[in-house]
Amino acid sequence: MRKLLVFQSDFGLVDGAVSAMYGVALSVDDELRIYDLTHEIPPFDTFEASYRLLQAVPYWPEGTVFVTVVDPGVGSTRRSCAALTESGQYIISPDNGSLSHISRVIGIREVREISEAVGRRRNSERSHTFHGRDVFAYTGALLASGKITFEQIGEVFPKEELVMLEGMYPKREGNTIRGMIETLDVRFGSLWTNISRTDFEALGVQSGDSVDVSIYNGRTHVYHSFVDFFHTFADVEVGEPLLYINSMDHVGLAINQGNFARAYNIGTREPWRIVLSVRQ
Amino acid sequence: MRKLLVFQSDFGLVDGAVSAMYGVALSVDDELRIYDLTHEIPPFDTFEASYRLLQAVPYWPEGTVFVTVVDPGVGSTRRSCAALTESGQYIISPDNGSLSHISRVIGIREVREISEAVGRRRNSERSHTFHGRDVFAYTGALLASGKITFEQIGEVFPKEELVMLEGMYPKREGNTIRGMIETLDVRFGSLWTNISRTDFEALGVQSGDSVDVSIYNGRTHVYHSFVDFFHTFADVEVGEPLLYINSMDHVGLAINQGNFARAYNIGTREPWRIVLSVRQ
Amino acid sequence: MRKLLVFQSDFGLVDGAVSAMYGVALSVDDELRIYDLTHEIPPFDTFEASYRLLQAVPYWPEGTVFVTVVDPGVGSTRRSCAALTESGQYIISPDNGSLSHISRVIGIREVREISEAVGRRRNSERSHTFHGRDVFAYTGALLASGKITFEQIGEVFPKEELVMLEGMYPKREGNTIRGMIETLDVRFGSLWTNISRTDFEALGVQSGDSVDVSIYNGRTHVYHSFVDFFHTFADVEVGEPLLYINSMDHVGLAINQGNFARAYNIGTREPWRIVLSVRQ
Repeated sequence: MRKLLVFQSDFGLVDGAVSAMYGVALSVDDELRIYDLTHEIPPFDTFEASYRLLQAVPYWPEGTVFVTVVDPGVGSTRRSCAALTESGQYIISPDNGSLSHISRVIGIREVREISEAVGRRRNSERSHTFHGRDVFAYTGALLASGKITFEQIGEVFPKEELVMLEGMYPKREGNTIRGMIETLDVRFGSLWTNISRTDFEALGVQSGDSVDVSIYNGRTHVYHSFVDFFHTFADVEVGEPLLYINSMDHVGLAINQGNFARAYNIGTREPWRIVLSVRQ
Repeated sequence: MRKLLVFQSDFGLVDGAVSAMYGVALSVDDELRIYDLTHEIPPFDTFEASYRLLQAVPYWPEGTVFVTVVDPGVGSTRRSCAALTESGQYIISPDNGSLSHISRVIGIREVREISEAVGRRRNSERSHTFHGRDVFAYTGALLASGKITFEQIGEVFPKEELVMLEGMYPKREGNTIRGMIETLDVRFGSLWTNISRTDFEALGVQSGDSVDVSIYNGRTHVYHSFVDFFHTFADVEVGEPLLYINSMDHVGLAINQGNFARAYNIGTREPWRIVLSVRQ
Repeated sequence: MRKLLVFQSDFGLVDGAVSAMYGVALSVDDELRIYDLTHEIPPFDTFEASYRLLQAVPYWPEGTVFVTVVDPGVGSTRRSCAALTESGQYIISPDNGSLSHISRVIGIREVREISEAVGRRRNSERSHTFHGRDVFAYTGALLASGKITFEQIGEVFPKEELVMLEGMYPKREGNTIRGMIETLDVRFGSLWTNISRTDFEALGVQSGDSVDVSIYNGRTHVYHSFVDFFHTFADVEVGEPLLYINSMDHVGLAINQGNFARAYNIGTREPWRIVLSVRQ
């Protein structure tokens, strides 16, 4: 057990909240090695929390403990949970959809409800607004340090009861696939879709093939063009668009060294849609 | 001794300044475990530096060494100091008010002036503008690594001589308490006041009670309403305001899942004031 | 060998890309101690990447491994390289100019081309757009952990073949020196030039001397004044300008507790120029 603990939140790094979580964890065991996923999740955005976990969790060693705190329902009756992924990492989170992408793409082996008898920091009973520090970071530190086992966190509940976000599956009809723009490759403006490499390969597209791409904002047809599929940006000239398989193994749409989203004013998630078609 | 070293500054994370401090500290002892409080203190804002220390320091293990570098007076005759808090952590800082909140709320056991004979990095004598790297990080690393003791840093001076920021105490008159809006819960827009749980409880307020809240910008009455006091956001509907005890054990004023400061254009510190009254 | 690994990139910290690199490195060896230089390099800005390496690398212990990923040519034929600096640190980088400042100021002892047979992560062969994770972080982790030696990374190539950025040397003519404003001390607005302490001392300037300072934006003369040279900000009143030697041992131009760049609308690099003259 290597005592790796990784934090994610929507707190930002401007104040002392993240550091207080670090302090609580290191007070449990100062041999922990604590790292960050990101703390720049937009406030209350559980979709983004879910997506960023998928981007990072699978690359970490088995046994790593993630603590994700995007928690619009703090203080409500929403469950606090601890999940073991099929790839062997643990994730401590409010049960509010934050585990959707990991559940869909990687799979969850088992999920438990955090018992506050175990997972609440001593003398924090009168604190009701910062479970990130008083419950989640504390529980994550107990688990990462080996002071408690996964089983000791609390009772198992059926993983089918986990809150899941909707609308995450692309739909294929014949030679057309309709998907979602899940996020932007933030600083570079590429569109990252929920269409996986497997979904895309089922269309029979080869490197160099031209694909009919449409993007809709609700009913408005915002973009329509034929774009070639390539393995890497350097396969097209600077300033040219391409379809490619991104680093999360899903279809991306980019301009080489440009910003696709800004060029065409494209947004993400509802009510945006991307539709790919090939001639057969 | 666990060799925990924590940095805070107003440098931001856009350039290499923070990393140079890390490098200097790890050159003293590469077994140090270095973490951050925040580096996003607004330039030269010693009040914010002081406040953020209070938000994080007490949650860290005893013996942790903090280095805080918000230093408008670098190169002047202002003292460099090292303080031992009543909660057992060390703080290395220019003596410019950065220790005010810790001193008021937690208490300081002893304070010493850093002797440059001890606490200045070898061969940095010709560098006059970056004490963060050349003096504070270096001294903090010596202390955190156990290469010097707290006593060896320099001479004790009376803690009453520490520079203190003004205006930090709320005033109570009968059933009314006047306080300061010390900061915003940045990304969520809640107002965090300098009125402690103890101050507030002295008014006899119970969960569910209504409190008369006024906010002033100098002489301008900016906000006036009755707001209920609750333990947690989930006790009110989304979009409703509440008074609550925040994670620093002081009175906060928020809109559940909304942004109070933006909703009413509220600022912090001078010349802003908040006044709470209860019927008796 | 202390297993220090330091990352720099233009990815920002808003998504999970940096954390995926951390995970890959810790999957190689979970005893690594990973820190950051900065991840806020503007997208594709190899000059800034080069400059920030100079600001931080020399302060880290010998044997530290830096991984810098600012990589507009990912997927092209640009080389991936590993350099050993004259100060004893390693830098893993695409060969695209990112090593220019280190090469000029510190010197490079030896440079090798990364062989993908050694330095590509297992099962990442189908990933073509994120060499930061799949090649650079992985290779850096192998080297920092001691699992491979510097020699095993790949073949030596002549360091004269390294891609170098242009225009980095100031020019002296008699009592005048013409230089470049390489960057701003971001949050404080001071101008940092490429005129070294040695270059400047050759003009014979002493503390308190007045220097004729001109700043040009192409052919436009944007600023002209006599500014005194001092060791530290506190040698002038708040609000007054000064020339000084900055923390990188080069000439800086600042307003004490003000923002020089904003005050006079000054930019950096081409086509900006700064000219210093002294009477002899």
